[in-house]
Parts: sequence; C-alpha cells; structure tokens
Amino acid sequence: MRKLALHILLSFIFVFFCNYLQAQTNPSHNERIHTKAYAGMDAKSDLVPYEFERRAVGDNDILIDILYSGICHSDIHTVKGDWGGTPYPCVPGHEIVGRVTKAGKNVHKFKVGDIAGVGCMVNSCGECEYCKAGEEQFCTKGATYTYGSSEDEGYTKGGYSTNIVVKESFAITVPNNVPLDKVAPLLCAGVTTYSPLRYNHVKKGDKVAVAGFGGLGHMAVQYAISMGAEVTVFDITDDKRQAALDMGAVKYVNTKNEGEMKGLNNSFNLLISTIPFAFKVEPYMAMLKVDGTMVLLGVPPIDQTPTLSTYALWSRRKIYHSLIGGIRETQEMLDYSVKNNIYPKVVVIPIQKINEAYKNVLDGKVQFRYVIDMASLK
Amino acid sequence: MRKLALHILLSFIFVFFCNYLQAQTNPSHNERIHTKAYAGMDAKSDLVPYEFERRAVGDNDILIDILYSGICHSDIHTVKGDWGGTPYPCVPGHEIVGRVTKAGKNVHKFKVGDIAGVGCMVNSCGECEYCKAGEEQFCTKGATYTYGSSEDEGYTKGGYSTNIVVKESFAITVPNNVPLDKVAPLLCAGVTTYSPLRYNHVKKGDKVAVAGFGGLGHMAVQYAISMGAEVTVFDITDDKRQAALDMGAVKYVNTKNEGEMKGLNNSFNLLISTIPFAFKVEPYMAMLKVDGTMVLLGVPPIDQTPTLSTYALWSRRKIYHSLIGGIRETQEMLDYSVKNNIYPKVVVIPIQKINEAYKNVLDGKVQFRYVIDMASLK
Repeated sequence: MRKLALHILLSFIFVFFCNYLQAQTNPSHNERIHTKAYAGMDAKSDLVPYEFERRAVGDNDILIDILYSGICHSDIHTVKGDWGGTPYPCVPGHEIVGRVTKAGKNVHKFKVGDIAGVGCMVNSCGECEYCKAGEEQFCTKGATYTYGSSEDEGYTKGGYSTNIVVKESFAITVPNNVPLDKVAPLLCAGVTTYSPLRYNHVKKGDKVAVAGFGGLGHMAVQYAISMGAEVTVFDITDDKRQAALDMGAVKYVNTKNEGEMKGLNNSFNLLISTIPFAFKVEPYMAMLKVDGTMVLLGVPPIDQTPTLSTYALWSRRKIYHSLIGGIRETQEMLDYSVKNNIYPKVVVIPIQKINEAYKNVLDGKVQFRYVIDMASLK
Repeated sequence: MRKLALHILLSFIFVFFCNYLQAQTNPSHNERIHTKAYAGMDAKSDLVPYEFERRAVGDNDILIDILYSGICHSDIHTVKGDWGGTPYPCVPGHEIVGRVTKAGKNVHKFKVGDIAGVGCMVNSCGECEYCKAGEEQFCTKGATYTYGSSEDEGYTKGGYSTNIVVKESFAITVPNNVPLDKVAPLLCAGVTTYSPLRYNHVKKGDKVAVAGFGGLGHMAVQYAISMGAEVTVFDITDDKRQAALDMGAVKYVNTKNEGEMKGLNNSFNLLISTIPFAFKVEPYMAMLKVDGTMVLLGVPPIDQTPTLSTYALWSRRKIYHSLIGGIRETQEMLDYSVKNNIYPKVVVIPIQKINEAYKNVLDGKVQFRYVIDMASLK
C-alpha cells in the first residue's frame, strides 16, 4: 500500500515536472502579451492611446520589443479608410525595428538580444507557387498584412506599439551596429522601391525618373543612383529641389511649372511613380523611351484611382503596379542598404506627435520620413 | 581639218555611248513606272480602279511585279479614316509578295526573277538608335509606311497595285517554292503576332491567350503553339470554335457567353489582343497571372480607344502596345514560318471583289485572311 502511494506520488511529481518543463520550453503555453499602442478608432478621428494583448509567443515566433516604427503614407490611407475595409481600432505601422526579447523553441534565425525588422507582411499560406517562390506578397490566398488583416486573433495590429509577436520567417535580420531609427523605413519604403529597380535590371547609364519625392521617392533615388542610373526627380514643389540634387539627381522637375515638363518625351528607361493621389498618367508614359516601363507604387484613394488611354502604351511602353517585395528580397534589400550605406532621411518623433506628423505627411512637408521613437510609449 | 572633224565625231560617239551605258546601268535614269491599282478616293466611298506612276527604279531599289496582296484590317481603318490623317487617293496594301523584275545597280540581295516581300514599312531614317538596332518601326523620325506616308513622291501607295518600287533593304527575301498567296499575309499579320511572342520569350508550357481570332489572331495561335505554349482563344462567335480547336488551341471562349468567361482569372502568362474595336480591358488583365503581360495589337478607331484603370495593373500585370516588327525580325519570322510550315488560312479573291471583302472583314466573316490575286488587275 505504501509502495502504491509512493508510486502515485512519484507519478504526480513526474507529470508535474513534465508539465513544468513543457511550459518552459513551449512558449505557446506562455501568457499573452500586453501591448501599449496608438490606434485610429474610426476614419475621422485622431489616433489615440490604446492597449491590447498580442498572442502568446509560439514555437516559431519571436517577441520583439519595438524600438522604432516608421510612418508610411499607407498607414494614413488605411486609418482614414481611403481604400475601404479598414477594421477599427486600427493600429498602423509596418516599418518596424526592435530587439528580440523572446524566441520560440523552433526559432533558429534569432536569439534574445538580436535586432529584428518587420515589414508589411507577417504571414502567408506558404504553399502556393508564389509563397514557394519567396514572393509572399502575391500569395494566392492573400498574405497576412502587418495590420488590418484577418487572423486567428481577429485582425492584425501593427507597429505603433510597444511590441509585436511574429513568425521568425517573416522577420528580417538586422545588424546591431546600424542606425536603427533609419532602418525602420527600409522595411516598407526600402523594399517597395528596391524591388522594381531590381526587377527591371537597372544598370549603369540607365535613365530613371522618380515621380513623387517623399518617403518612397527619396529611397528610389538613392537605390537607382547606387545602381549607376542617371536619375531625374519630379515633385510638385521647389522645396525639395536642393535635396534631390544633393542626393545626386541629375535633374529636378517641379511639375507645377509647365515649362519644366517640356522636352522630356522619350527620355527614360524606367519611371517610378510614388504619387499617392490622382494624377494624369499619360504625360509620364510619353516620357518613356521605346521599351520603357512605368512602375506605379503610390496607391491613391479608391475614388482617385487613375485611368489611362491605351494610346499611351504605344512603342512597347509598359506600365504595371508593383507591391512591396517578398521576404527574401526584403532581406536582400536590407543587406544591400547596409552595405551601400543607403538610409532614409528621417525625422524622429515621440508617438504623442503622431497626428501632427500625419498632417505634415499629407501636406508633403516632411523631408523625408517620420519615425516614431517607441521609447516614448513605454 | 579632217583630223579635227574625225576627233569631234569620235567624241560625240564616245559621249553618246557613255550616256547609253549610264542609262543602262543606272536605273535612276530610267522611266517612271506605270501602275494600275485600286484606291479609296475618300472615307465614305467604295474602292475604285485607279492608275498612277511610281518613281523610277533607283540604284538601291527593286521593282516588284506584285503577285498577291493581303487585306489587313488596318487597310480598312485607313481607307475609312478611322485613325485620321488619311491622304486620298489611298492605295492600301502592306502584305505584298511578288517577283523582282528590275534591280538597281547597288542591289545585292535580289536578282531579277527572285521572289520578294514587302510589309508595312518601305523606309526610315536609318540613323537613329532604333533604326540602327533594326527596329525601324520605332524610327525617331517616323518610319515611312507602305501607304499613306509622306515621301518625295507625295505620299506612299501600297500593294493593291500591279507593282511597287522599294529599297531592297526594306524587302524580304522569299523562297520560290512556297505558297505565295499564303506568304503575303505573313508580311504584316505574321510579324505583328510573331514579334510579341518572341519579345516575351514564349516557351514550352506557357499559358497564352489570344483574344480576337481573325487574320492576326489565327497567326498568333499557330506561332504560340509552335513555341510550345498552351493556347486559349477568345472571340465573339461560335463560328470559329472548331477552327481554333483544330489548330491546336486547348480552349475556345465565346466572350458573348458570360458563363464561358468565368473561372479564368490568374490563368495566363501572356495575352495577345487583336481586337480592333472598343472593349473592356480590365477583365482580360484579371486573367493574367502575376507577372503576366497583355499585348495590344488591334488598333480601334480613335474615338473607340480603350482606357483602363490602373487597378488592373496590380501584381505586376503589365500592358503595352506592340507595333509590327523590324525588317530583320520580319525576315526572321518569314524564315521561321517557312521552316515550321506556318501559314495563314487564306481566301484568294480577284481585286474586283475588294469592297465585298471589306464588308466581310468588318462582319468577322472571313476565315481568316483575304488575299488579292493581283493577276486580276493585269
């Protein structure tokens, strides 16, 4: 009888110990993560402080203590419901960099203390032809975006927050000796502009135009120049002329001065448009050389979506819409940026200034990218 | 004195002989060429018999006795003034094949008795980057088209005629053991469809769609299949279904049957549109896979030029307008067609039936290309 009692006692101890071990090694049994953030509560109001819980850190997840979060025009479009379908409360932010504070047991790419970046996507099916090709942005089931996408937790919430839990396969490794405030915008503005330049094989001597010299535009200019292109910049103000020339552009065109738009037809191999509002596409198409390509990156509100006449497409002048880049290409872009010392020009703000910053972005007044110092929320 | 008279006499004989020799060897001193043709005299009327003179055969020219001349939808657009700027009388015809009956002294590619073809162009500047690259269709000064283009003679007149004088560099060599009535349409319909398939590197297993199964479309289908593609055909009638399947298409879609248009999104690597009237571009763009390309070949009347929303361009879906092909590529296409036994299905008519043929083309009733037997005009 005493033997049985001892056996039962030992069994209890064994089971308890196993459970304890499992809890220690399998973070999915850990607790959910409390998160402080700023959110848009509807399409009309300012962003306000907001708290919520993230999922517990799973076996393949890392928990990132967010250090910096860039402000992308897409954030504003989404919060304001410009593209429709925004779920509220909306916590924007898909230019995220921070320090890994926890890693699931299957995580190999990161260890606690490493720097990690998160861009526009946090998941995808992993099985379709595009996921397998490393172009998760084209996942046939739809990639899970960093904010506003459906997921088990309801919908995703982005980087205007103190932390994020993310599958390691969707996190980018970042060296720890680089300016992290400047790294954040690379995760969207960087890869979004790097990708079409690579896709179109930009090389020495190519004539590249960049229309819209803002957060994306000033990255496109730097990458294109680094690849050997001669770059012409278009914007709607004179305020950015000097910055463009200082950056190495061979020409700056203020499109509001009609005279400056003349004589540019048949000039460019590639034209990257980051223009985020309605505009006339045809005059830009006419500036392409034979076989030239116009790449659309900016996404105007739905009711301002540009149209174009197919007459603009003569002489094999092509046009298409690019969409960020895959995770593999995002890592390639980050490595390329670090190696070539290409970073955005940033204005670091505390999160309490977010609404003022939004207004300045809409007015084209920031040179060139706001980045939120997330320490301001801790 | 007798010696002087003899000297003068011999000098006269010498000069006369030299002039005679020059006249024989330099055809530019030859006479202008009388030509019988059919022409549109204005945008509204039927084509009627018309006679005119072509330039004398220059040192670099050949004179071609035209045997067959294809009827292209462009001929009808031009005669009817659909694209504006047609000079009348308008002698259409840019699918020309015939026998060389005279060759200038600098001509090396042809000798009298050879078969030669002439397509859409008869001249270009020869000096710009596109001419030097063998893509004369993009000549920065504007290629001289086979009919309706300005030239020293006023404006060019095409192949609905008994003969044509053309620079040898713009003539295509044709073997003399091939069906010449079927060769004629290769000079426009052939190269216009061959060029974008090559440009887009169509290869085994590619999914290619051809919208508009007429003169151009049925050539595109044959070339694409010969390159290993799986081809789907779109047209607005059931009358051509069997012909498409017989030709090797894997699927035929009558676009007037709504049900047949369903389930085709994300299907094609390349979509070639030969549609010559207004149509909605977006549904076709949606049928492209990621990275797919839509190529426009048909050119609707100016007031029916399609527009499209840039939303249709997402996922790197591209669109552009192709334009025939250069002379080098036209020769390549002809050699490829002969080697692979790819020819149009033609209906040979006497020129006196031209107006009836035009009507049938507009009604989509020809399977697939009318070719005029120019013996009917001699």
